[in-house]
Amino acid sequence: MQQIYDYVNQNKSRFIDELKEFLRFQSVSTDPAFKKEVDACSHFVKALLTQIGFPTITIYPTEGHDVVYAEWIHNTDLPTVLFYGHYDVQPADPYELWTTPPFEPTIRNGQIVARGASDDKGQVMCHLKAIESLIQTHGRLPVNVKVIIEGEEEVGSRHLYQWVLDHQEMLAADVLVVSDTPMISDTQPSLSIGLRGLIYFEITATTANTDLHSGQHGGAVPNAITELVHILSKLKSEDGIIQVPGIYDSVQPISPALKAEIDKIPHSDANYQAELGIKHCPGEPGYTSIERRWFRPTFDINGIWGGYTGIGAKTVIPCKASAKISMRLVHHQNPKEITQKLTEYLKEITPSYVDLKITDIKADFPSNPFLADITHPSIATACSAIEWGFGTKPVLQGEGGSVPIVSFIQTKIGMPAVLMGFNLPYDNIHAPNEQFSLDRYIKGILTVSHFLTHFKR
Amino acid sequence: MQQIYDYVNQNKSRFIDELKEFLRFQSVSTDPAFKKEVDACSHFVKALLTQIGFPTITIYPTEGHDVVYAEWIHNTDLPTVLFYGHYDVQPADPYELWTTPPFEPTIRNGQIVARGASDDKGQVMCHLKAIESLIQTHGRLPVNVKVIIEGEEEVGSRHLYQWVLDHQEMLAADVLVVSDTPMISDTQPSLSIGLRGLIYFEITATTANTDLHSGQHGGAVPNAITELVHILSKLKSEDGIIQVPGIYDSVQPISPALKAEIDKIPHSDANYQAELGIKHCPGEPGYTSIERRWFRPTFDINGIWGGYTGIGAKTVIPCKASAKISMRLVHHQNPKEITQKLTEYLKEITPSYVDLKITDIKADFPSNPFLADITHPSIATACSAIEWGFGTKPVLQGEGGSVPIVSFIQTKIGMPAVLMGFNLPYDNIHAPNEQFSLDRYIKGILTVSHFLTHFKR
Repeated sequence: MQQIYDYVNQNKSRFIDELKEFLRFQSVSTDPAFKKEVDACSHFVKALLTQIGFPTITIYPTEGHDVVYAEWIHNTDLPTVLFYGHYDVQPADPYELWTTPPFEPTIRNGQIVARGASDDKGQVMCHLKAIESLIQTHGRLPVNVKVIIEGEEEVGSRHLYQWVLDHQEMLAADVLVVSDTPMISDTQPSLSIGLRGLIYFEITATTANTDLHSGQHGGAVPNAITELVHILSKLKSEDGIIQVPGIYDSVQPISPALKAEIDKIPHSDANYQAELGIKHCPGEPGYTSIERRWFRPTFDINGIWGGYTGIGAKTVIPCKASAKISMRLVHHQNPKEITQKLTEYLKEITPSYVDLKITDIKADFPSNPFLADITHPSIATACSAIEWGFGTKPVLQGEGGSVPIVSFIQTKIGMPAVLMGFNLPYDNIHAPNEQFSLDRYIKGILTVSHFLTHFKR
Repeated sequence: MQQIYDYVNQNKSRFIDELKEFLRFQSVSTDPAFKKEVDACSHFVKALLTQIGFPTITIYPTEGHDVVYAEWIHNTDLPTVLFYGHYDVQPADPYELWTTPPFEPTIRNGQIVARGASDDKGQVMCHLKAIESLIQTHGRLPVNVKVIIEGEEEVGSRHLYQWVLDHQEMLAADVLVVSDTPMISDTQPSLSIGLRGLIYFEITATTANTDLHSGQHGGAVPNAITELVHILSKLKSEDGIIQVPGIYDSVQPISPALKAEIDKIPHSDANYQAELGIKHCPGEPGYTSIERRWFRPTFDINGIWGGYTGIGAKTVIPCKASAKISMRLVHHQNPKEITQKLTEYLKEITPSYVDLKITDIKADFPSNPFLADITHPSIATACSAIEWGFGTKPVLQGEGGSVPIVSFIQTKIGMPAVLMGFNLPYDNIHAPNEQFSLDRYIKGILTVSHFLTHFKR
């Protein structure tokens, strides 16, 4: 490992220059105006892989943006590591809030500042430069590697699902490694062991042909907002328990081993509340706020609208009201099953004189939860790698959010997944002045090198 | 009365021409662009009064539009009738939905079609032409008359409240007569005996400094919409009973005499539901839908908004959510008292970690309920007048809406009020193609003449 360490440090400034070059591509996947830049970026990724020496590199066009796929199979007796990352980025606006232009990477206080620095170009480069370092110092790789770098993560990986289904055999591997999640803090490295799933709906209650005058008709006609409010109030109790029957049936209790790991995480509810400007962490009784954020399902109302919302008074009884509602799911909760239970319950609690329309917004993009088996050797290997790379023993953490494509690949191809992210919660992902620490960039390269060297099937 | 009848019929075509002239003024009070037209209209009203022969006519300028006031005191031993009406109108847009231009009055199928035809110029003219007819046929009036015709009814009578307070002595009278409410139908004349009051609030729940990511924080932080929904769900039970403690304390039961009158009204819930496209008339148990619309208080949510309301999914936990809520009040419910009870209850049901801001939108324009004493002789006099004018015995009806200035004048000056309206529910008040039947115009003049002739103190 000393040779690797020396190689990485000797090539540090070139590695930074190459990351800068990657960051200059305005590969904004959501906006068709950037289509050419996204295309150019996929070819740049191919060039990066070529330069490292990958023997097989293919750009797969999709109806959206390209999937770049590469393989380096040395020896079928060796284990195979499948890496997933993405070269597309979030839009950079509002541009005026950036201290320096988002696509002109700038080094400031040891941080490289640019759109995509953390999410996900910097982390993708940790893997590519680790592979390069292993090849350059040892002349061969300790494992077979397969690499998927897609261009539509920020738009829900919309064409990758089908592509994965079409290439299941090709993608077979012993472990899936993803670096697209943050560590706990600058001083406390961590490894993510879970992701929550997500289901999301728009519901609309209709009660009449038209809005009615509240004086003329008030008292004799249904009010769509009042009806919607009563329906919504029955979905989660005031103490935070989801009321949909059977919703907790498949939720696994937090194991003593996992609880022991969570308890190692430095956390203070008081600091957390002060930071967000909240006065309380309401939620399901019997769980800490961390447990609720990572390992328990949630129900949230994400938006609501109906009736008169302008200035002053309008005495209207609205005939229509809508809400966006969603649930985060945890391990063993099947999105389809939960969707069915929620839908049935909604119908059951809707009065017969209310027409309730339910639209499943995420039906096309299944978002399963994921929870690693923390006793699987890949977790220990990843922890050792982080400890070597970052100089501190990591803790295990959960992740309240969803990276739907990760659980999809992991489930469909069938392999454990390691969520080995290197950035920090305050790196301004999806916000102005996104950054990635140069120090963490180098430590990330070292960590991946260590992981690839020590991973066993 | 035969002389009156003959005079009115002989002068019918001039009365129609004069109404047309009145309707040509674009006296839209809400839009400053029409200020000159509103001013010109108040001078036209003065000219109408002058032509009839009123000895005292004053235009009182306000910070908004003029109040036109006239008196004709013959004999202080005679009873005094105070008439209230308004010369301003609602905006006419959308213009493209009018068959003929809104300020070019047109006769079509026996209807005069123009903005203000029913609300309230046509009905004001019923009074002025009745007074003229009495003078012309008898050389004197059977009562003293006082007339307020204001220019800001459609903008909440905002300067009339203070003007009334400043002229209480001048306005003293034995009865207040208002023609600004509809009858039941073309074949069933009616007299309105009640108005509901109105209180209206905007409430905003705030739970954090900023919107939060539902993956990162879901399960550990309050959601402003969820909190608002729980608060709103506690204001009215699902079977339609308002939950604010003490809210029904001052509500009077519907008297057997009133119930007997209401039961005379031809009504079918099935037809009513079909007309509005509703499947049910939900509401307070133990009351008919008519009783609930006219003589019971209501709580309605008039608008609601918060979080993400665009297309697709945004996984946000909103930090702020708002609603517009209002209550219609009935006789003996004091808006200030009810406001206090509602406010206290809202505070009581709001969790300590939620900041609830309550804005009283109508605080400056008190809207008291009004219920006539149906045993007062003015009611019988009005019913006889309607029966003579329209040829059919009227029924008594309530009015679910509010005309705040009426209950204000009635309470402040202290006198019974008679709500003797002549138009119909389908006369397109506040809508394109507003109309007033010529037949009803003439019958209205006859009715008012009869009322003034027979009214006793």
